[in-house]
Parts: sequence; structure tokens; C-alpha cells
Amino acid sequence: MKTRNIKVADPHIQNLASLLSGPNPILYKKVDLAAYDCDGFTIQRFLPKAVVFPENTEEVAAVVKYCAENNLPFLARGAGTGLSGGAIPLNGEVIISLTRMKRLLSVDLENRRAVVEPGFINLQLTRSVANKDYYYAPDPSSQYCCTIGGNVAENAGGAHCLKYGVTTNHILGLEVVLPNGEIMEIGKNGIPDEPGYDLLGLLTGSEGTLGIVTKITIRLLKNPESKQTVLAYFDRIEDGSQAVSDIISAGIVPAALEMMDKIAIEGVESAAFPVGHPRDIAAVLLIEVDGIAAGIEEQIEQILEVCRNRNVREVRVAKNEQERERWWANRKTGFGAMGAISNDYLVQDGVIPRSKLPQVLKKIHHISKEHGLRIANIFHAGDGNLHPLVLFDSRIPGETEKAIEAGSACLKACADAGGTITGEHGVGIEKKEEMRFVFTDDEITAQINIRRVFNPDNLLNAGKMFPTPGRCAEIKQELQKK
Amino acid sequence: MKTRNIKVADPHIQNLASLLSGPNPILYKKVDLAAYDCDGFTIQRFLPKAVVFPENTEEVAAVVKYCAENNLPFLARGAGTGLSGGAIPLNGEVIISLTRMKRLLSVDLENRRAVVEPGFINLQLTRSVANKDYYYAPDPSSQYCCTIGGNVAENAGGAHCLKYGVTTNHILGLEVVLPNGEIMEIGKNGIPDEPGYDLLGLLTGSEGTLGIVTKITIRLLKNPESKQTVLAYFDRIEDGSQAVSDIISAGIVPAALEMMDKIAIEGVESAAFPVGHPRDIAAVLLIEVDGIAAGIEEQIEQILEVCRNRNVREVRVAKNEQERERWWANRKTGFGAMGAISNDYLVQDGVIPRSKLPQVLKKIHHISKEHGLRIANIFHAGDGNLHPLVLFDSRIPGETEKAIEAGSACLKACADAGGTITGEHGVGIEKKEEMRFVFTDDEITAQINIRRVFNPDNLLNAGKMFPTPGRCAEIKQELQKK
Repeated sequence: MKTRNIKVADPHIQNLASLLSGPNPILYKKVDLAAYDCDGFTIQRFLPKAVVFPENTEEVAAVVKYCAENNLPFLARGAGTGLSGGAIPLNGEVIISLTRMKRLLSVDLENRRAVVEPGFINLQLTRSVANKDYYYAPDPSSQYCCTIGGNVAENAGGAHCLKYGVTTNHILGLEVVLPNGEIMEIGKNGIPDEPGYDLLGLLTGSEGTLGIVTKITIRLLKNPESKQTVLAYFDRIEDGSQAVSDIISAGIVPAALEMMDKIAIEGVESAAFPVGHPRDIAAVLLIEVDGIAAGIEEQIEQILEVCRNRNVREVRVAKNEQERERWWANRKTGFGAMGAISNDYLVQDGVIPRSKLPQVLKKIHHISKEHGLRIANIFHAGDGNLHPLVLFDSRIPGETEKAIEAGSACLKACADAGGTITGEHGVGIEKKEEMRFVFTDDEITAQINIRRVFNPDNLLNAGKMFPTPGRCAEIKQELQKK
Repeated sequence: MKTRNIKVADPHIQNLASLLSGPNPILYKKVDLAAYDCDGFTIQRFLPKAVVFPENTEEVAAVVKYCAENNLPFLARGAGTGLSGGAIPLNGEVIISLTRMKRLLSVDLENRRAVVEPGFINLQLTRSVANKDYYYAPDPSSQYCCTIGGNVAENAGGAHCLKYGVTTNHILGLEVVLPNGEIMEIGKNGIPDEPGYDLLGLLTGSEGTLGIVTKITIRLLKNPESKQTVLAYFDRIEDGSQAVSDIISAGIVPAALEMMDKIAIEGVESAAFPVGHPRDIAAVLLIEVDGIAAGIEEQIEQILEVCRNRNVREVRVAKNEQERERWWANRKTGFGAMGAISNDYLVQDGVIPRSKLPQVLKKIHHISKEHGLRIANIFHAGDGNLHPLVLFDSRIPGETEKAIEAGSACLKACADAGGTITGEHGVGIEKKEEMRFVFTDDEITAQINIRRVFNPDNLLNAGKMFPTPGRCAEIKQELQKK
């Protein structure tokens, strides 16, 4: 490892640089750091102390060890597309960027696995095995740029998680650098149900608070023989919601079952991939089924029947792959498209029992009126995962705060309906306080105790996931014991 | 709560009885306790201090609290069908029997969930919702008598886990009594991907070492429209193994893909449900596909084709539901059937990558010869889960020890092939030392540290899952720090 000649007053910068082998391995000037002051959650911004670019696991471990020994807070970052602020350096952290660790290390089709580094891009994995007729299932809308490491941290979902499950269902093994710099392999044999406690499940979705993932063994799926996609327009959102329930009750498990409401449609039709959705409808459903070709036709017939029974205005099947892809491109621009109809937007991520859809939508409509802000709704309707998008204008004084309040009220509505406060975006800094909607103080303390097993000094990604201790006597006590 | 008049020298017995409301709430006489000195792992036996029968969560919590305050070791027990000794009172525990907490508390078909008490019998759940066309997927061979609480503790599998996943994939929420007597709800909203750490995953499969489950929210599945089952006989086990790989490679995910070898066939044909498998074949495959009727035929054709390409001697589809059920009854007697051809048997539970099947079978054959003991093989071949059954006679001095050695060698062979030491039976006391085949000391210590978060005094089910501290310096050190 060559020592780099960086002339800065802070010796930590030089020392960190000396641990890294690549070109330009560290950013430390304010102008460079500005790009790392937030992730996809842009409402709160903090400058990191530095950003380092390790090239391999050993360099990650060396940086972590250095930070631990010198009491420097640190955190890991992938592509920075996270929506709940999990990679924001709240405490002036050293950011460990994993974007240079982006190799596809191996593919084992016989056992349907691949091993990737954390900076490997989600969609790139599917592209790498597509010619062999395999794919990687979890497909967050950011899949063209988000990293698998980030997906593991947030237990990312996506439109096709209804049938295929979220990230945790597709992770077979992890290599992790623990907060003391030790390297640990979990589920190293790539076998789903290992003996001992389920550390693989525990680490997945731990939002970068227990360790830094440096290698991931992942499950590959065979492409389904056939796919068909249905588009259905409803004049009443209740009819659309009811159609969702009816499809599931009929025993069909669609690969995806998506819904957008009127304001969301206004957005996607004003953005990069308009497909001509009528502007005056209340809801559009996008329903995809996949599997053996012979079974698909029958399911499509059932779906068309269900939609007709629920007063659908228009329903049709994608004529070909091109049309299907256009529909999906249109849907996947969903969040960003809000930029075309609003200066700012805040995306929320609640989950409710499917049967409560109409009731919660009514409540969200009420919240919108109450706060004087428009709220668009995009949902993974099949698994009850709502994404209310609160539209606001940060240039108007007080409107940002009002948007945050409205977002929180939407989550409260989900929790009150027997649901929860995040389906796939994580808690991060955004929803820390909302954790109280679904967990008691004791339950939160139990989780903080688990963090302490891995991350006893709380130098790794502190201040995320759990409510501020000052506001919770029990946790405060717990922390004082330290 | 009425105080019971039990006249025994030990005041704990009377005090425990006073916490319980049901008739005959405690066993404490040696003659009664003898029935609880082991579970399905019969090689080691220890008498409990007492067996208590709580009627509800509050009584479980009261007993646990009493034990914690009086430093009495304790553990929970369901039907006692566990195969790795998880419910054996190694330390003279107070056994908390959950067999009286066996109510089906609610069924919510719209959201496809049910809530059960831990003593509810697995198969009973499917029977309770069958008339509505729903079922509960995990189907261990003991399903007619094992409890859902026990299934959660061991993360039980079953023949149909290839397509549908093991218990952890079907648990949406738990109510747990922690080792200090506190009651905690995890995933209380029955939503699969809750915010915070995945405690649901952590508790499931923790073999009764982190808490006692008192309520379970469970996922129900809609019955598949159609099922078909294929039976295939092979003269060479390599051909059978290769057919397994070929079926999966063809992109078919069968609901079940089971295999039995020659000795296993001898067993099941000598037991309660013979179906006329030829005694001279090397392997029988049982392959079930389910789903939409229209898709099934095509898959069956592909499966028949694969078998023919691998020199199958005979292959056929079940003529009707009666024949299908007979084939399954025959297969599910598998373990017990060994009693018909051997005085004793020891079942093992290794997992290997599917592609290593022929190689590991050769190794097991070698182990059999080396130890002079017959080993039958029954596998969930589709997911590489082997059950070598070591046949022995405990009346012959030294043969029990030889059988244990041979079983351990089989697990070593699995671990060496890149596999692991248990797929669905758990570690318990049986495979504690074999944990070293797949985990380093550091990894084991990390897990023990997690146990300490929940179970700091290790009064709950001590001595299970992890190797004996005396034999592992690092763990010893860790424990001394306490």
C-alpha cells in the first residue's frame, strides 16, 4: 500500500488515504463533499468528514478499523438512491463509498447463484445472465442505477415483489465487515436455511447499522416462459381497489399488481414516457402474470372478467413486448415524474392490509385537504404497499414542514389501519419518530440492544432507524448504562 | 388464580402450581416425568424438574417470571416430535408444555391469515380452512401431530418446501414471552416486511433459546387449482440425481421433488403403506407439480421427457387423487419405516448444493462401509436436503456410538461439499459440535452474543445449538467476561 501525499491539516485524511490503493482514493474538500451531503432523501443535508473509495474487502476493513480506533463516525454508501436518508452523514461521518467494488465475481447457473460486490448495479445482474435465460427478481424502480449492496441494506422491494418476494428472499450469503473491522461470512455456503440464528435475515434490511456488506451471494431465477400484462382504467378508485382484492381472492398471484391514481397519472403522462392514459380516470391498474405459457391465458381471462365485474371503463392486454415495456417505463418514472407537476415532492411508503385500501385512501384524501397539499398515490396494490407522494413547493415558507407533517399523517393512517410505516424504503432518518406508531419503547429498546451486539460504540451510521433517545425515557436509561 | 394443595417437599412445585388455572396443571412425580425425558431425539435422556401446563399467555409469563426470579432453568415443549433434542431438559428444566394452548384464534381469509396458539397441530390448520379452499404450506412428515409452535422454534420444513419455502416464509407475526417474563409482540400487524431489524426471522428457528412463542400469525395459501404427481424408478442412483438437476434446469419448480434409495424403499415397503415399489431399483423419484390446470400438462410432459432421457426404468403419472395420496403416505412413513428393518435408526439432516448429489451419495456409501452400518437415504432432492438414516442396533455394545459417528461423518461430507449440517431438523443437542463444520469460533460467539440480548442468564433452554464452551477458547473467554 503506497502512502499518498495529501497535504491537509487533518492527519486523519492522510492516514485514511494511505490505507487505499486506487487512484484518487479520498475526497475531503468541501466542494467535493457537497455531492455527498444527502441521498435520495433530500430534506436534510450534512457534510461528511471525507469520502473514501476502497477497492476491496481488505481496504474496507482497514478503513473501518482506523475509524473504530480513532473514534471517527463512519457509514457505507452505494449509489445514494435511498429514499429514507440511510446514507446521510448526520454526524459528519467518513463515508465509505462502495462504488468501486462493482465486480460480478461468479455465476453458478447449475445452483442458480451469483456472487457480486456491493457496488454492482441491480439491473446489470439481470443483463449479465439474460442470455442464459436467468434474471434477478427484486426490481426497485431505481434498478438501472441502484446497487445490490444498497438493496441489501434497505431490503429493497419493487413492482415484482408481490410474487417473488423482497431482497431478503433472494440473498443466500453475505461477507460483512463488522464495526470493529473484523470480516465475517454469513450463509457462506449459499444455502437458504443455515443452522444457528438467522443472521442473514438480521443483516438484510438493517440499513447499514450492523455492518458493511462487501460480498453478496444472490439467488438467480429462470425467466418465466411467458408474461402478459393487462392495463385497466377505472372511473372510481373503489372499483379499482376492489378489483385488486378480487384478483387475489381468485387465487391468482400476479407477478405485479400496480395502481396509480389521478394525480399520479397526471405526473407520468407529463414525464419522459407518456403512454396516453386518459387524464380523467380515477385509477389505472397494471397487472402482470407470468409462468408457463399454457397457464397464462386462463389467468388473463379471469383478470379481464374481474375488471369487467368492477365497472372497468377500459381493459386490455399488451399487444406485444414493446407495448408492455412502454407501460412499465411509464410506471417506473412514477416518483420522478412528480417533478413535472410540482416543484418538490415527498414520497412516503406505508403498508396496509389489502382489504383496507379504500378506507386508507379516503383518509389520505382527507389529509391532503387538511394540509392544503396535493397527494398523488402510486401503489404496489397487490401487497398493500402505498406510496403517497406529497406535492409541495419548498420556496413557499412553511410548506416543507407542512409536507413532512402530511407524510407522517399518511403513515399514521397506515399504522392505524393495522399496517406499518415502511414497505421497502426503510426508516433511515426520515421515519425514526414514526417508529413509535408501530413499536413500544420496550420493543425499540430490544432492537437497540441487538444493534449494540454488532455496533457497541455506535460509530457506524448512528442516529438512524430508531427514535431520538432524548424523547424516550427507557432508551435514555439504557444508553446511560453504557 | 386458586392455590392448589400439592404436598411435596419442594416449595417450587407448589408455587408453580399456584400460578396455573387448569386441572392437573403440574407433573412432578418421577413416574410422570419419565415421559418428558426426551423428544424425537431419543439417544440422550434427562428428567425435568417438573412439567407445567399453562392455559394462556399470562400463565406462561407468570411461570417464566417465577423461574427467572428463582434461578430455575426452563424450556418450552410442543408435541415433542423434534428430531434434534431441542426440548430435552438437559439441566433438569421446568418444562412448559404448550399442549393446552391449542386454539385457532382467528381466520381472516380476505387477508389470508390465521392466528393460532402454539399448541395447535400443523395439519389441523389446513383441515380448518380446507372447505374454503385454503391451506397452510409447510408440511413436515410429522404434521398430523406436531405443533405450529414447535414448527416455529425449529423453522420446520417438509416435502413441499421446495416451491413454497420453510416455516419462516409463512410466519407473519409472533407473540413471545421473553426469558424475563415480559410479553412482546413481533410483527404484530401481520405484515411481512416490518421496519426495524428482522426479529421475526431471528426468533423463527431459534430453537426455543430466545423466547417462548405464545401466539402465531400465519400465512394461508389458496389451494392450487390442480396437482399432478409423477413416480419414476431408476436403476442407477446417478441417473435419478441427474434427472433432479435436469428438471430444475428446465425451469420447472415442482411443488415437491423427493427421492428414496434402495434401503429406504425396503423400509417403506415393509411398513404401514406399501405401494409396490420394486425392491431391486436404485432410486425412486416422486415429483409433484401444482398450479393452474392448463400449465400442468406441459410441465408433466417435460418431466416425463427428462426421466426418459436419463434411462428411467418406469415412469408414470398418478391416475387419481387416491393413488397420489397413497404414494405420499408411503413416502411420509419414511423415517418410522426404518423401524421395520432395523432395531434402531438415527436420522440425519444435511444440505448440499443440488449439483453435488452424486458425489455426496458416493461418500455416504463409503461411510456406511467404513462403519459397517447400513445407511438409507431419503431426500428432499429438489432443494438438496438429504436425510441419511443410519441403521443400527442399540443392543449391540458400541453400535450406538458407531451410528453417531457415522451420522456426524455424513454431515461432515455435506459441509465439505459446500453444504451445511441441518436443513429443517435444527441443531438442538444433537449437532452442537457439528456447528464447527460450518462456523468459526468468532461466528459462534457472535450468535451467543445475540442469545445474550434476549436470554442473558441463559436459564431458557441452555446447552442447545452451540458447541460446549469448554471446547472453544474464545467462547470460554466471552463467557468468563459475564
